[in-house]
Amino acid sequence: MQVLVIYDVENDRIRSKVANACKDYGLQRIQFSAFRGDLSANRMEELFFRLKKILGVDKGNIQMYPMCEKDLKQARGTES
Amino acid sequence: MQVLVIYDVENDRIRSKVANACKDYGLQRIQFSAFRGDLSANRMEELFFRLKKILGVDKGNIQMYPMCEKDLKQARGTES
Repeated sequence: MQVLVIYDVENDRIRSKVANACKDYGLQRIQFSAFRGDLSANRMEELFFRLKKILGVDKGNIQMYPMCEKDLKQARGTES
Repeated sequence: MQVLVIYDVENDRIRSKVANACKDYGLQRIQFSAFRGDLSANRMEELFFRLKKILGVDKGNIQMYPMCEKDLKQARGTES
């Protein structure tokens, strides 16, 4: 299933670790702090666990959303 | 339905217009450049049209995702 990861992380070092973890799981960067790609339910849980570990007690917010086909068909996006 | 709006907008003035438009439509800010809330399909289209107009030809990327109940149940989030 498609998964969207969005994050607000203040610390530059931690933010790049979050990005690298998303890349490790094959997600594509779609915005500065947003990645998207195909993951199994298990891999999604694994990635979320890893991202939580990376963030630790540092200030930040990470959200992970699975997106079904039906929702994706109604998604809208600009590109400029 | 729940709708997630995420955006990368360089220009501060335009970025705050995007945020204000999201607030006008009753969405809640969940991250620096991410809003979420309940919109009808029509209101989602209306908001997307308004956001595209705000962005105009300026550099930026706006994504809008509807999120069904089933997906939301599997969503994951950290808060620290």
